[in-house]
Amino acid sequence: DSKLKIFTCNSNPKLAHQIADYIGIPMGESHTTSFSDGEIQVKLSESVRGCHVYIVQSTCLPVNDNLMELLVMVDALKRASAKSINVVIPYYGYARQDRKARSRDPITAKLVANLIEKAGAHRVITMDLHAMQIQGFFDIPVDHLLGVPILAQYFRSKQIENPVVVSPDHGGVVRARKLADFLNAPLAIIDKRRPEPNVSEVMNIIGNIEGKTAILIDDIIDTAGTIVLGANALMEGGVKEVYACCTHPVLSGPAHERLENSPLKEVVVTDTIPITHPNPSSKLTVLSVAPLMGEAIIRVHEELSISKLFEIE
Amino acid sequence: DSKLKIFTCNSNPKLAHQIADYIGIPMGESHTTSFSDGEIQVKLSESVRGCHVYIVQSTCLPVNDNLMELLVMVDALKRASAKSINVVIPYYGYARQDRKARSRDPITAKLVANLIEKAGAHRVITMDLHAMQIQGFFDIPVDHLLGVPILAQYFRSKQIENPVVVSPDHGGVVRARKLADFLNAPLAIIDKRRPEPNVSEVMNIIGNIEGKTAILIDDIIDTAGTIVLGANALMEGGVKEVYACCTHPVLSGPAHERLENSPLKEVVVTDTIPITHPNPSSKLTVLSVAPLMGEAIIRVHEELSISKLFEIE
Ligand SMILES: Nc1ncnc2c1ncn2[C@@H]1O[C@H](COP(=O)(O)O)[C@@H](O)[C@H]1O
Ligand SMILES: Nc1ncnc2c1ncn2[C@@H]1O[C@H](COP(=O)(O)O)[C@@H](O)[C@H]1O
Repeated sequence: DSKLKIFTCNSNPKLAHQIADYIGIPMGESHTTSFSDGEIQVKLSESVRGCHVYIVQSTCLPVNDNLMELLVMVDALKRASAKSINVVIPYYGYARQDRKARSRDPITAKLVANLIEKAGAHRVITMDLHAMQIQGFFDIPVDHLLGVPILAQYFRSKQIENPVVVSPDHGGVVRARKLADFLNAPLAIIDKRRPEPNVSEVMNIIGNIEGKTAILIDDIIDTAGTIVLGANALMEGGVKEVYACCTHPVLSGPAHERLENSPLKEVVVTDTIPITHPNPSSKLTVLSVAPLMGEAIIRVHEELSISKLFEIE
Repeated sequence: DSKLKIFTCNSNPKLAHQIADYIGIPMGESHTTSFSDGEIQVKLSESVRGCHVYIVQSTCLPVNDNLMELLVMVDALKRASAKSINVVIPYYGYARQDRKARSRDPITAKLVANLIEKAGAHRVITMDLHAMQIQGFFDIPVDHLLGVPILAQYFRSKQIENPVVVSPDHGGVVRARKLADFLNAPLAIIDKRRPEPNVSEVMNIIGNIEGKTAILIDDIIDTAGTIVLGANALMEGGVKEVYACCTHPVLSGPAHERLENSPLKEVVVTDTIPITHPNPSSKLTVLSVAPLMGEAIIRVHEELSISKLFEIE
């Protein structure tokens, strides 16, 4: 039986350590630093010959540095004769550039997939890809995990009375439907519409929300514009309270301030991306994906199905 | 006859514009910016369908951002049906990671070559690669230009009396030999030697330098440690004056201060990398590679030999 080793770079070392703890093995020893001119230097301090190696690295901000760290690490492991190189990307950056939305757009999500494969990865384990189609950008196996069960378990334990799960747009309905099922709650959808060009959007809510406690769900909260506009529309529409949740707290630009000043009661996220803002919003609750990722790695390593990871007790 | 277009990203737009001016065509219109979360966005504002496109981008600091900009630009051009995509990389970063110097080292110079090819480039035009072997890391044509003729022309015009060209180490002798030939000057070599472990290096100078004006030449000046130690050793060895020159002014960390406080009289570099330091050394003279690069692009586009670019009048 071949040996399992876990390595990490600099995007999310805390999560990587928690995953290693969950699995019950020490972190593989490596040092990813920069030379004086900003070039990345990766040093592997232990042998990986014949090992099944898992690299935990999110491609969040600084996205290009984190991506390049991952690629250089894969290159080093490949040349050091690792038996298999499995990249664990809790947050897959560039996922919103997944199609030619305008003519002459790049499709950077596909470029990144190509780069990861070309570097020498044999498998990807990731979570809540912005578009499920990105799985098909790879020609190696992709194990795709979901954050919904983790979020659902948390909201269940809160025992919210009279909940309604709300999708902030039509693109997120499948995800919202899953959360609603787990919580045995009805579903509503925010339907944005621009009545005329250059007239601001109208937020129309499809579904009954009056007097209920709304739970907005999205995959990513980036600048928090969408989620806060949604929360405002729900408050105007007569909800009692409004929560928000997502898997990936990108939280760039004005996000923390917007969340803080919004009518949102609580914003529940996971640790696929670390919160690095010096003055984060007090409304954030961070749930760990380490047990889920750890379990996924164990099951992949033991060649077991990962489908039980999509259930909750 | 297919159309030639030049694009650039953000590493060295001034050089790109000078190259376009030399060729006598306007810059291709494009905008490479970042989203709020740091992800690169490339917008091509004109059609490239059927065009032979040249992208000018150095992979200098911030190296990972500059590399990713280049890759995303290549992806966008490929999907926009450019006929050929030629990447012009005046300074090729990560070139010093070109072999396993220690066990389990990555070979990042090869990784970068793979990434550029995988993105969709058809040809590379570059200059003074740290190791010529990097040409072989590509499976597409590499046109390799030399900075020595430009540096030589400058020193010739200075009409230095009694010059000696000095290589700061054994690795740079071929380059120094070329400069010495152009200048009709003798050659000396700094031979570093560590007499015992944990004893500091001894600088032994091979060749006659006494009373002469030394011209140190290297491909890269990074932190300026090597070149300043060399200059000191030459002064102690009895040279009258000492100049330094290189193609790629990486100039990271303490470089500018070190140059300023050194016995160097003048430091001659090219503009493959822009000088962005807020307080650059007053000793720098910057020569432009735009005419060389422009001529190379014209000749490549017209399918002519580039060998005449290695001569000087
Ligand atoms: N990092 C990013 N930040 C903000 N917007 C982005 C980013 N990447 C892509 N986009 C844009 O988001 C849109 C795609 O998002 P979506 O419609 O939610 O899939 C496209 O118009 C993209 O140009
Ligand atoms: N960006 C960099 N800055 C400083 N040293 C580097 C860099 N990249 C690689 N190196 C080291 O430089 C050495 C190779 O330089 P050289 O012997 O001149 O080819 C190796 O020991 C590398 O680890």
